[in-house]
Amino acid sequence: MTTTTQPAPWEVLAGMLAEEADGVALEAYLDGLSDGDVVLAASRLEHEARTTLLAALDPDDAADLVEVLPETQVVQAMEELAPDDAARIVEGLPSNEQADLLGDLEEPEAEAILAEMKPGAALKLRRLAAYPDDVAGGLMATERLAYRPRRTVAEVVADLRLHAEQYKDYDIQYIYVLARLGRLLGVLRMRDLLLVPETTRVREIMLRDPDTVSPDVPLDELRRLFERHPYFGVPVVDERQRLLGVVHKSDVEEAVAERTERDFQRAQGVVSGEELRSMPLLLRARRRLGWLTINIVLNILAATVIAAHEDTLSAVIALAVFLPIISDMSGCSGNQAVAVTLRELSLGVIVPTEARRVWRKEIGVGLINGVLLGLLVALAAYAWKGNAWLGLVVGTAMAVNTVVAVSLGGTVPLILRRAGVDPALASGPLLTTVTDMLGFLLVLGLASLWLTRLLG
Amino acid sequence: MTTTTQPAPWEVLAGMLAEEADGVALEAYLDGLSDGDVVLAASRLEHEARTTLLAALDPDDAADLVEVLPETQVVQAMEELAPDDAARIVEGLPSNEQADLLGDLEEPEAEAILAEMKPGAALKLRRLAAYPDDVAGGLMATERLAYRPRRTVAEVVADLRLHAEQYKDYDIQYIYVLARLGRLLGVLRMRDLLLVPETTRVREIMLRDPDTVSPDVPLDELRRLFERHPYFGVPVVDERQRLLGVVHKSDVEEAVAERTERDFQRAQGVVSGEELRSMPLLLRARRRLGWLTINIVLNILAATVIAAHEDTLSAVIALAVFLPIISDMSGCSGNQAVAVTLRELSLGVIVPTEARRVWRKEIGVGLINGVLLGLLVALAAYAWKGNAWLGLVVGTAMAVNTVVAVSLGGTVPLILRRAGVDPALASGPLLTTVTDMLGFLLVLGLASLWLTRLLG
Repeated sequence: MTTTTQPAPWEVLAGMLAEEADGVALEAYLDGLSDGDVVLAASRLEHEARTTLLAALDPDDAADLVEVLPETQVVQAMEELAPDDAARIVEGLPSNEQADLLGDLEEPEAEAILAEMKPGAALKLRRLAAYPDDVAGGLMATERLAYRPRRTVAEVVADLRLHAEQYKDYDIQYIYVLARLGRLLGVLRMRDLLLVPETTRVREIMLRDPDTVSPDVPLDELRRLFERHPYFGVPVVDERQRLLGVVHKSDVEEAVAERTERDFQRAQGVVSGEELRSMPLLLRARRRLGWLTINIVLNILAATVIAAHEDTLSAVIALAVFLPIISDMSGCSGNQAVAVTLRELSLGVIVPTEARRVWRKEIGVGLINGVLLGLLVALAAYAWKGNAWLGLVVGTAMAVNTVVAVSLGGTVPLILRRAGVDPALASGPLLTTVTDMLGFLLVLGLASLWLTRLLG
Repeated sequence: MTTTTQPAPWEVLAGMLAEEADGVALEAYLDGLSDGDVVLAASRLEHEARTTLLAALDPDDAADLVEVLPETQVVQAMEELAPDDAARIVEGLPSNEQADLLGDLEEPEAEAILAEMKPGAALKLRRLAAYPDDVAGGLMATERLAYRPRRTVAEVVADLRLHAEQYKDYDIQYIYVLARLGRLLGVLRMRDLLLVPETTRVREIMLRDPDTVSPDVPLDELRRLFERHPYFGVPVVDERQRLLGVVHKSDVEEAVAERTERDFQRAQGVVSGEELRSMPLLLRARRRLGWLTINIVLNILAATVIAAHEDTLSAVIALAVFLPIISDMSGCSGNQAVAVTLRELSLGVIVPTEARRVWRKEIGVGLINGVLLGLLVALAAYAWKGNAWLGLVVGTAMAVNTVVAVSLGGTVPLILRRAGVDPALASGPLLTTVTDMLGFLLVLGLASLWLTRLLG
């Protein structure tokens, strides 16, 4: 029996690029694929081929493709493309994604691309790129429809008709009404235009004093705003109420999803930015090694506690069996507390100043679970060696260390957040090192103290 | 110096509720707070007080509040409210959130609430709640505007005007054109209505054969669709092309964010659903203990390997110092590989069947980093004890175990995913147990083998 294997989409695409297929043929092929296959095909190409593909496609199609590709691949392609090709693709992206992308590029490449854009657009983009990614200014789109208050519905409709092509990708739920100098007076919904006579002026139907945010409002606050109010977008204004842009609900949700994924990656030790297995081997190994080196140094540091108690350990060799258990279980208990704190921060039910409150809430859990885990490990020790004092040593160490682990796990993320350090990144190693050292010290210290009984 | 402390918002709110303030006063107070303070105030109340608050507010205001509260608090309040009060609040939520909430309630409570709703609405909601949360059917909203193809723009506008109040919370970017039996013929954008004469029939301006999805399309595919195409919503149709609802981009992004947060919590050992520190102490301790018990059993299992080599260990006590290091570092290396796999799955650049491809990519990283970490720990051992054989034992164990850890870390999530097990939940303990056992076996096995040299 023979099976004829269909070539995979990335093989077909690579073949087309090798034969210098034109942009129309390439787009036609991509259009025939599912969105999932488009990602697989384009992300699996060699990076030179991916750059060739983006250059060959119509800039708008290339921009659509850029939005599904992993960020690191996009950045590499943008830096390899001719600046004018890159500029045309950037112009095809929504303004907030333009700014994100420019911010990810190396300075000279970003400048080269900006130099190829229209001066007005480049200036606007520079301003946008100056905002951090996770505040209203960095999330807002500058595409919006705005009219003066004296405009009539007929005039607005005529403008929409005239610029239909240009506005086609705008998310126009809302139309903004601006006074001179761009000061925001009010807002109206697209459909409000349908419900009134054509001679009505927009100021007569606009909602006055709409909710607005300033450009420095953080992501979590925006998320709560959209959860509590049925808006699809909220205008961003400066201190003089001038309209700067619009933050859309979907962009806020997308940014939350990305931040959570980044936190997850960092907590798991992927800390030097996104890793893809399509990246060069040495780069991947080197990036992971940074994190591993920090951890092995911290581990060796913790192990010095064991080294300092070699005599006790050689007297009661059974203790060595329990050291990794105590170390790992403190990590488990501590990580749970870290996770609950990060979740409560994200939900907004605690604020970073409440370490004391969190600590009081953790102590109880630590005591209950510490005693139970301590009993369990004490029983295991007693069952194994028949020595109650061995059980007492490892059980006590486990119980005390659990209380310390949950206390630190609950509060350290808050303290790190207040100190401006990423809690997802630093909580783990900090916690593990402290609880390892303390755990080893408890087991071996208590054993030294009761050595005669342990040997009895 | 005395400081007069302003009472916190939750204290004010609790005070108002204790004095049986009416819904208008309560809403007025909440309206004066920032969205962040609303969450803090409402989430900190005793749960009876929170239920009282939701019952006192106008149902639409209560629904807005429900959307910012943590899910577990909402579920508890809904189960405590009188079913008719709960039903009015549920009706104030968007349809997809109605279904999510009903799905989270206990069966009898959900039935009691459904019984208080209009039969048509209840039937619709039952159908929606039958879909899993993370497919198009579970994410879609059923609120949508739909007209027959022969309707004119004037008729559509008249309908919009007539039902302006009912439609006010709809996300109406699109108007759907339906044939008999609800078959989807086309779609038009709200603003298209503005750009044509009033006598135009909608079939003349609709976009025919729009992109649609079936109700079982999964979340990741929807995410890619919205990344690649500039849609704000996509219609969901059944196998006969009948329109079932609309999936909005913002709901997809929100679901992705929630799923990632849940994955993060599970990977950190919070596995029995959302924990809030406002929950009862015993419940919190018990929930965390489940995970800890599994882990301590696995840890004891791994430690039996050490117990089996007590003789070797008592001959070369220095080995005990390295056991926790090997155990912890394998966890670190393995977790990095797990994280990269989960990220690649989420980006869509690998599919779950590609374990072999991932493994080939991990081997190289494992070899490079294993050798380097092995060298480092070997040097530390040699520097400490001056015995090259000790360095060789712990270095070799570290190197081999790192290769195994990244191989398992990279592939296990894919294998679990294919087996229908949550990889974020199960990868960690599985990985740690296997690499702990192997690491201990390598250190102590090699040491037994070279025992004379170690003692030499």
